[in-house]
Amino acid sequence: MSSNSPTSTPPPRGDKRLVRQSANRASYEREDLYHVLDACPIGHVSFVHESWPQSVPTAIARIDDHLYLHGHPKSRLYQALSRGERVCVSACRVDGLVKARSAFHCSMNYRSAVIFGTGELVGADEKPALLDRFTDRLIPGSLEDYRPYLAKELKGTALIRLALDEYSVKIRTGDPIDDEEDLELPHWAGVIPIESTYGTPLPSKNLNAAVDVPAALLAGVDP
Amino acid sequence: MSSNSPTSTPPPRGDKRLVRQSANRASYEREDLYHVLDACPIGHVSFVHESWPQSVPTAIARIDDHLYLHGHPKSRLYQALSRGERVCVSACRVDGLVKARSAFHCSMNYRSAVIFGTGELVGADEKPALLDRFTDRLIPGSLEDYRPYLAKELKGTALIRLALDEYSVKIRTGDPIDDEEDLELPHWAGVIPIESTYGTPLPSKNLNAAVDVPAALLAGVDP
Repeated sequence: MSSNSPTSTPPPRGDKRLVRQSANRASYEREDLYHVLDACPIGHVSFVHESWPQSVPTAIARIDDHLYLHGHPKSRLYQALSRGERVCVSACRVDGLVKARSAFHCSMNYRSAVIFGTGELVGADEKPALLDRFTDRLIPGSLEDYRPYLAKELKGTALIRLALDEYSVKIRTGDPIDDEEDLELPHWAGVIPIESTYGTPLPSKNLNAAVDVPAALLAGVDP
Repeated sequence: MSSNSPTSTPPPRGDKRLVRQSANRASYEREDLYHVLDACPIGHVSFVHESWPQSVPTAIARIDDHLYLHGHPKSRLYQALSRGERVCVSACRVDGLVKARSAFHCSMNYRSAVIFGTGELVGADEKPALLDRFTDRLIPGSLEDYRPYLAKELKGTALIRLALDEYSVKIRTGDPIDDEEDLELPHWAGVIPIESTYGTPLPSKNLNAAVDVPAALLAGVDP
């Protein structure tokens, strides 16, 4: 993880997980996968619907060794997931623009993951505790500040998990890599970082003025 | 665009573009599509490969009325695109965490787009000018600061365009929407903004100290 080029044993030639472009940036390590997923609140879930690939951006949360997604039980996505159809989830976070002396060698610093699998519907017994952990992953520190779920809400929320067995990770960090013969050209080269930060919480217009932001929530979203 | 609920005529029932969940947040307007795409440097391109959906995060740029992607001509993605296979591109930017009084009504503020289509390879005559515009979209203001493309670089870069004919957009803004009976509960409700900003440019380790960041580039990435 600390190096520019994560390394691990690649899957065999022809395997769908095999990263072929910039293969030196690929990783097949679980800790790298978690590092990427934990930085990405949104995953793009693709499945095949009437012979078209269809990709749906949706909130994701990695909890222990599974990836969780939730949504309306009747949505096309959750119908496909609960039928056990094959899906692919990709997630990506951009950490910087990489400017080289040539446009050809420009790039981005990023962390990305691609996961293949089939979904499994979480049962009613496990759902409440896992939904709490899901919420706490997406809005860190908020968990003590909700009224309890209503029975109809639990029923109306499909929670799906995917095993994290088949995946690849790609991470780029660091400087541009220019051609040796370009190094003395009078062009700037370097990285423009992209920072994603939480701003000051904005109270809802209908919030009772006596209600403050809970300390745990403030701490959870503290940059 | 200024309202919480973009509206426009939805496609017919059963159409793959039709947004069915939170349909009040859907738009089928071109100006909303551009608004989303222009805020997203990364698209997730899905296609079907050996009966698996496969999604690849990649740089995207909307130029005029097309979406452009570039990459290595031999990659699986560009092979699929240049064969004219059906693809779906999704893009999403998260603008805030939306905390309600109930976990059930928590959400995110986001701008997302889903595009369906087939790719078209850009010919050698058009490629240089379009690659310049592509670079300028991704690293704004950098365009005067590169050595020219080499012939082998132009040959080694596939540039693909997709017509923006079939798409849907989904945008959420504003406050949480709590149940009426929850409004007086002693729980905080509101939005925690997520801000994405450019940091101070970091010169490459091998950069000649006499080379400054060009003013146009600094202006291009000025928050």
